[in-house]
Amino acid sequence: MKVSLREIADLVGAEIIGSSDIIITGISGLKEAKEGDITFLANLKYASLMKTTNAFAIIISKDITADTNKTLLKTNNSSVAFTKVVSLLAPSVTNHPKGVHPSSVISPKAKLGNNVSIGACAVIEDDVCIGDGTVIYGGCYVGQEAKIGENCLLYPNVSVGERIDVGNRVIIHSGAVIGSDGFGFSMVSGVQEKIPQIGIVKIEDDVEIGANVAIDRARFDKTVIGRGTKIDNLVQIAHNVVTGENCIIIAQSGISGSTVLGDGVVLAGQAGISGHVKIGEKVIIAARAGVIKSIPPETKVSGFPAKPHDIAKKVNACVQRLPILYKKIKELEEKVNELEKKV
Amino acid sequence: MKVSLREIADLVGAEIIGSSDIIITGISGLKEAKEGDITFLANLKYASLMKTTNAFAIIISKDITADTNKTLLKTNNSSVAFTKVVSLLAPSVTNHPKGVHPSSVISPKAKLGNNVSIGACAVIEDDVCIGDGTVIYGGCYVGQEAKIGENCLLYPNVSVGERIDVGNRVIIHSGAVIGSDGFGFSMVSGVQEKIPQIGIVKIEDDVEIGANVAIDRARFDKTVIGRGTKIDNLVQIAHNVVTGENCIIIAQSGISGSTVLGDGVVLAGQAGISGHVKIGEKVIIAARAGVIKSIPPETKVSGFPAKPHDIAKKVNACVQRLPILYKKIKELEEKVNELEKKV
Amino acid sequence: MKVSLREIADLVGAEIIGSSDIIITGISGLKEAKEGDITFLANLKYASLMKTTNAFAIIISKDITADTNKTLLKTNNSSVAFTKVVSLLAPSVTNHPKGVHPSSVISPKAKLGNNVSIGACAVIEDDVCIGDGTVIYGGCYVGQEAKIGENCLLYPNVSVGERIDVGNRVIIHSGAVIGSDGFGFSMVSGVQEKIPQIGIVKIEDDVEIGANVAIDRARFDKTVIGRGTKIDNLVQIAHNVVTGENCIIIAQSGISGSTVLGDGVVLAGQAGISGHVKIGEKVIIAARAGVIKSIPPETKVSGFPAKPHDIAKKVNACVQRLPILYKKIKELEEKVNELEKKV
Repeated sequence: MKVSLREIADLVGAEIIGSSDIIITGISGLKEAKEGDITFLANLKYASLMKTTNAFAIIISKDITADTNKTLLKTNNSSVAFTKVVSLLAPSVTNHPKGVHPSSVISPKAKLGNNVSIGACAVIEDDVCIGDGTVIYGGCYVGQEAKIGENCLLYPNVSVGERIDVGNRVIIHSGAVIGSDGFGFSMVSGVQEKIPQIGIVKIEDDVEIGANVAIDRARFDKTVIGRGTKIDNLVQIAHNVVTGENCIIIAQSGISGSTVLGDGVVLAGQAGISGHVKIGEKVIIAARAGVIKSIPPETKVSGFPAKPHDIAKKVNACVQRLPILYKKIKELEEKVNELEKKV
Repeated sequence: MKVSLREIADLVGAEIIGSSDIIITGISGLKEAKEGDITFLANLKYASLMKTTNAFAIIISKDITADTNKTLLKTNNSSVAFTKVVSLLAPSVTNHPKGVHPSSVISPKAKLGNNVSIGACAVIEDDVCIGDGTVIYGGCYVGQEAKIGENCLLYPNVSVGERIDVGNRVIIHSGAVIGSDGFGFSMVSGVQEKIPQIGIVKIEDDVEIGANVAIDRARFDKTVIGRGTKIDNLVQIAHNVVTGENCIIIAQSGISGSTVLGDGVVLAGQAGISGHVKIGEKVIIAARAGVIKSIPPETKVSGFPAKPHDIAKKVNACVQRLPILYKKIKELEEKVNELEKKV
Repeated sequence: MKVSLREIADLVGAEIIGSSDIIITGISGLKEAKEGDITFLANLKYASLMKTTNAFAIIISKDITADTNKTLLKTNNSSVAFTKVVSLLAPSVTNHPKGVHPSSVISPKAKLGNNVSIGACAVIEDDVCIGDGTVIYGGCYVGQEAKIGENCLLYPNVSVGERIDVGNRVIIHSGAVIGSDGFGFSMVSGVQEKIPQIGIVKIEDDVEIGANVAIDRARFDKTVIGRGTKIDNLVQIAHNVVTGENCIIIAQSGISGSTVLGDGVVLAGQAGISGHVKIGEKVIIAARAGVIKSIPPETKVSGFPAKPHDIAKKVNACVQRLPILYKKIKELEEKVNELEKKV
């Protein structure tokens, strides 16, 4: 595919700095780019690669002063610009399955919308309802009475339990499990008795769920993943958790039962939140933090137990200087002993 | 479904406080209950909802004094009472697959008990033995010579390796893997040589295993999950681990190779235990704790490295006060300097 | 099976200490061994079992002085010796599927090498290429244009995404997902817009990947798992990560995007590494460590934020002694107060 740089600049609303008389034939990262490629600077760490890249042109943010003789495309948001260029230059990298594969097992009681695609050996149980344009890859399982909205994408070997409610434009990656039982037991004469988990999971529109994520169904009512929330791989969401809209939940983090997240919360990698707490809007929880109580809105917390980040940083700096402190205190003791002898 | 409150009270052995002349039509959580529902108070945090709930009646523990004008059912164990009410009012929420689906692939050498159900596209290999009343959902894989007991429930896309031994009434959630190879390598001239893992996993009766759990087979002999032990989602159990009976292993925790847990151990979320250690009976390991040596019975530990909880709490309190301590020491130094000048 | 001890000693190049006139009939661990078995000492913790084991002979390392009257086989590397004995005495514990199962769904456009085995209900999409001798168990999914090398072993329910490139002799355990989308979003007017992930994953030769691992495809170009690297269960590898050769990545650890590992790096259990950092050759990252910046080669680090292990140990020792320090400082304050009164 050949596109002129001028055409790309128009598509993404960019200003061309340098020669605009260039034909672009591919798209790539800064380091691995070859002649003819367009690339972009996503992280200032890699700015020095702008001098050595083989790319013909580089998309960067308007506010960056670049030290390179390459042609630049300056935009307001280089990531978004790049996404548009990918759509132009690599539109059909992935060919999702088309149509219903004869080896899939679809209950005659299931309702499929228009242009639904179901891959090989997928299983769709009774009374499932699947919206228009949704693609379900091979090996997926959708339990009875589950509802999958329009234009969803379920990658291979996803498990969606019975009665789960998935909105529109939801992407679920392989191995994710939506609707396993919440973890609830009650000790009765020395034995753990199972507490029935009869609720559901509601996944709202535009959610993305990573590989091998587990989201438990509610004891009653529903576990909710709010509209536009994005969940990375290997995350645990316990029963009755409710996340707000547009949250970002990064890999290997976990949220315990009945905890509620406001809109726009960021939970970084390997962090954890206790059960039955409330996390305010736009709270940022740092990587590996362990949250054990509710957090007011727009707070950044870190550490375990998690505290406001400024305090946690101060505490941590104190901890790192402890070996010096111990020395200082020893000296102080000696001085005091000397003084006591003298006085 | 309509049931009188009196009938429910009799079923769970509860005392009715308030009007007993009520017809119950559904079951729900405190917050989401509607008129006609019965609900229960599981966590005192939510006691204030007892005033505002739309439910007609609330199950609570005998020892709680409730400030509400709703009808109460007082019982010894409200969770257990509630479980019974769920069985009465919502008995058949889930219709497990019935019979053997024609698209499942069952070796003619496999032995199936009475009333075994196998879902679509499930694979049952040679010499597998499945007990009466067991349900295996679509997409599951059971390897050769594996043994699954009676009345087990394997949710979709579970993988059970060859020769694995699963007891009776075991529940395994989607994506769980039982019997992957233990992680064992030996460095030989700069290359990691695989050490064969020829043992099995034995899952005893009444165990429950969460979604996307991984339990490795032993190098020799067996990895054992003791009777009645409950394992939450995304837990790692390494080769040759032996857990006692009625342990509770919460989400995203991990147990390294050859470690032995006594009966009734609780391992909270995101905690970890080193290999080759022994955890005594009824030990409680707090969330995110990292255990690196053996622990005597009936101890509660927390922190990393994990210590008895009282000590860990004290240490942590000291850590949090460090910024104040540093100030205090600075003052002390100044005072001593002053004193030294004077003396 | 019956083998003379002499034959075993010759096979593994061991010196026999004690009676060589023994017939070995089985192989087992020290504790569970029965008469006729050969066993080995892998961990000095279990040395006392050498007195009580029922085994007829024990393989140990040359440099160990054993207090037992059992016959010993002394070798340079007891693990490797044992692996050879397993191959001799338990050669065919596992019978992998043979041939192509009629219920598997293989695109006519896929290319299969000689002696490829595909299990029941496995799905192989268009233009997949599978090398000679590779075994793909039931329930696996291999996406279009993926390439699987020779003599690989994919256990049940593995998902390999489109265009993924897997080398030779690679072992992938159940539930692993290779090629899910990298986690990349860009906030545009309050909504998280997906950044396309159009790269691949390259798994080099002799890699082993554990159960329920997730390895994301690159934004562009490729995520790389270097030759001979071994990955344990439930590990997260983000997009554009590049690991060196012969790395060991233990259970539940995670590596954030674009981080680069040198050869021979060891990442212990539940550890984590931030994105965009560089870990030098032969770095050892201790269990539960959290690495937030680049680490020079051949360094051992621990703690969070991870520091050189010697320093981290010192800091941690200081932390544990804090309650004593606080007491000491209180005494010091009192002494200084006394002194101030006197002077």
